[in-house]
Amino acid sequence: MRTVRFYFDVISPYVWLAWTQIHEVEARTGARFDLQPVLFAGLLQANGNKGPAEIASKRVHLLQDVARWAMTLKLRCAGPPAHPFNPLKAQRMCAALDDPNARRRLAGALIVATWENGRDLMNDAELRAIADEAGLDGAALLAAAEDPAVKERLRQNTEQALAEGVFGVPTFLVDDQIFWGNDRLGFLETYLAGGLRIDMADVEERRARPRAADRKKM
Amino acid sequence: MRTVRFYFDVISPYVWLAWTQIHEVEARTGARFDLQPVLFAGLLQANGNKGPAEIASKRVHLLQDVARWAMTLKLRCAGPPAHPFNPLKAQRMCAALDDPNARRRLAGALIVATWENGRDLMNDAELRAIADEAGLDGAALLAAAEDPAVKERLRQNTEQALAEGVFGVPTFLVDDQIFWGNDRLGFLETYLAGGLRIDMADVEERRARPRAADRKKM
Repeated sequence: MRTVRFYFDVISPYVWLAWTQIHEVEARTGARFDLQPVLFAGLLQANGNKGPAEIASKRVHLLQDVARWAMTLKLRCAGPPAHPFNPLKAQRMCAALDDPNARRRLAGALIVATWENGRDLMNDAELRAIADEAGLDGAALLAAAEDPAVKERLRQNTEQALAEGVFGVPTFLVDDQIFWGNDRLGFLETYLAGGLRIDMADVEERRARPRAADRKKM
Repeated sequence: MRTVRFYFDVISPYVWLAWTQIHEVEARTGARFDLQPVLFAGLLQANGNKGPAEIASKRVHLLQDVARWAMTLKLRCAGPPAHPFNPLKAQRMCAALDDPNARRRLAGALIVATWENGRDLMNDAELRAIADEAGLDGAALLAAAEDPAVKERLRQNTEQALAEGVFGVPTFLVDDQIFWGNDRLGFLETYLAGGLRIDMADVEERRARPRAADRKKM
């Protein structure tokens, strides 16, 4: 079975929008998404980049855009009570689960809890309840989130993602192909079905072309 | 006739991808795109933001992504000989044209010249030839690009775009709605056809929600 690595952080509404679509992509392609928790803030930090919620005008566009996606996909979006929020404990709880199926169950439950149902992922009681409702041991996962080895695993996941060329979430990796954004699930699905074989030597040739203008260091 | 302001900078391959699609959107909706030149670098600078060509991994994704779009849309993409390049003179030549039809003709010619045909928009002889081929006076436009009033107009266009919430290119503005990216032409078209009336009061309520976590100033 084909596995697609799905790098996620519950902080992103686009991760949620992707989550709502992957089951159908799996049904149509036979591929399986493996949910890998990372810290979006860590990806931004490493690249000296800003997230969309960190630029006022980009945040306004994001809110309009997510509303359009939700309307198009007929999704309810209560949205988190505060945003950006700190996703650290939620992401660590996911990182504590070695079993891909359990990890995915928890990730999906957390994503839907905050984006669809407006629950607060910075609240321990909520985190525990959401895990319990997903058939997992919420108390044990909440405790595991404090385990130095689990904290390290989330850091390593984020480092691995960076090493693989990931700079945002959601990102989907399969073979040597990188797909960024819920809006690229169509391209990903076509690829999984055997299409969109781009010329990677040509991509590399373009990457190696000269730069004729660079802005001064910011 | 409905007018959509299309903020562009020839530096962006996504501006090119959008350009190749707007004629069909116009034919289907009866709307008209008004091409407004801005400096993408100015938008980035004002927001302390980075462009996709300024982050190594994001640039690799961009190259794969543009190759996928070109393959999907059956477009030839020679691409500029160097990238990023300095689009200043090309953008100023567009800003020199008051007539929306002439401005659009030049903009389209420049966009296609570099992205489809690989011509160098930092070369004066090329800029002049491309304008001439588009039925305009290349020599006069090249001279106009040095006119302080034209330089100021491009600055003002960029300032106006920023004031309207534009942070990237291509951006499409109609009514109080903002659509960013060639990949949002579908949403724009649905909106122009009377659909996707999102609840703007709800968007504003979400915008005003508290922030629970902010990264330290970079």
